[in-house]
Amino acid sequence: MYPPGMTRALTAKGAATRQRIVAGAAQLIRAQGADQVGLDDIRAATATSKSQLFHYFPDGRAELLRAVAVHEAAEVLADQQPFLDELGPEGSWKAWRDVVVRRYREQGIHCPLTALTAQLGPSDPGIRAVVARLIDEWHARIAAGVGRAQTLGLAEPSLRPEKVASATLAAIQGGVVMMQATGSIEHLEAALDTALAVLAPRDAA
Amino acid sequence: MYPPGMTRALTAKGAATRQRIVAGAAQLIRAQGADQVGLDDIRAATATSKSQLFHYFPDGRAELLRAVAVHEAAEVLADQQPFLDELGPEGSWKAWRDVVVRRYREQGIHCPLTALTAQLGPSDPGIRAVVARLIDEWHARIAAGVGRAQTLGLAEPSLRPEKVASATLAAIQGGVVMMQATGSIEHLEAALDTALAVLAPRDAA
Repeated sequence: MYPPGMTRALTAKGAATRQRIVAGAAQLIRAQGADQVGLDDIRAATATSKSQLFHYFPDGRAELLRAVAVHEAAEVLADQQPFLDELGPEGSWKAWRDVVVRRYREQGIHCPLTALTAQLGPSDPGIRAVVARLIDEWHARIAAGVGRAQTLGLAEPSLRPEKVASATLAAIQGGVVMMQATGSIEHLEAALDTALAVLAPRDAA
Repeated sequence: MYPPGMTRALTAKGAATRQRIVAGAAQLIRAQGADQVGLDDIRAATATSKSQLFHYFPDGRAELLRAVAVHEAAEVLADQQPFLDELGPEGSWKAWRDVVVRRYREQGIHCPLTALTAQLGPSDPGIRAVVARLIDEWHARIAAGVGRAQTLGLAEPSLRPEKVASATLAAIQGGVVMMQATGSIEHLEAALDTALAVLAPRDAA
């Protein structure tokens, strides 16, 4: 879904090896924090040689971290499936909302994408592009759900799906920022419920 | 408002000098980014000697950066005055909303607190405490405004001021995250207007 920015085609086997390295690095970084994980740790955890690592990530650690960001961004959306793509019908908003809240409750303050952004710098163009693409994709899927709810006659025809999606996604992002700062998940729940109340009063908590 | 975590009392002159160093460092960091600013740059910009800097910040750069975070957090609230403390009456929500949106529009992607959090690490306990205190204080003031609106008969008595404040503040934080990622301020405006629509339909855009 997110092109990993490869400059040359890989064989199927090569792509699988690359993916194995990225997934292993992602797991390590999630457990220990990006600043604690060096290339040697990643090599050890994924049983990869120095020349293999260089073959797949010739630009070194920053390139690998960007690939991890792409991987983690795809995970953010995958974690919400199938609920995210099934938004629209009655009950669907509450089912999705509960999955999102549970995910962040379990994840706590350790957001992998925040950690990578902090490590590579908020202005790293590679990371910014990954996060921007994640936001755009997430936003589009929520907006599509609003459109389906309207088609089903379950949401006001006058609502602008893009605006509802912006408010809903901002409620999640902002609720997570507040959770990371204060340790309380209440803000996230209140914000998301408020955003969804506009759409589906019967679903709102 | 935010105790700077000083371990000893300073004379009035000492406190003024310390404040001058912190304000100068904050300005430098806002312009250039925390990772570009060393102690020597701060000494040069504030005409401070090494021994003075050591006197006020014996623990070095991290201690000074935390003091800058305290200063910037106070600025976030000061920038919204007097509108933030006058929330409640008709028109007050829109006036405040416009100030908040304008502030972030001018600031762009360069949020000083985000930059400091990235530099010191999201888990730095000093920075986390500063951001948590800012969130709590900001939240309390919005909630107080909701309470005043209720007293004036301008908001539903059934609304919970804390919940409205959570949704409103999350809309701001999330809208800023989305602006930093995508470069567009539309999400922030949509989210904030949606959160405020619950409260004051006549004020909403």
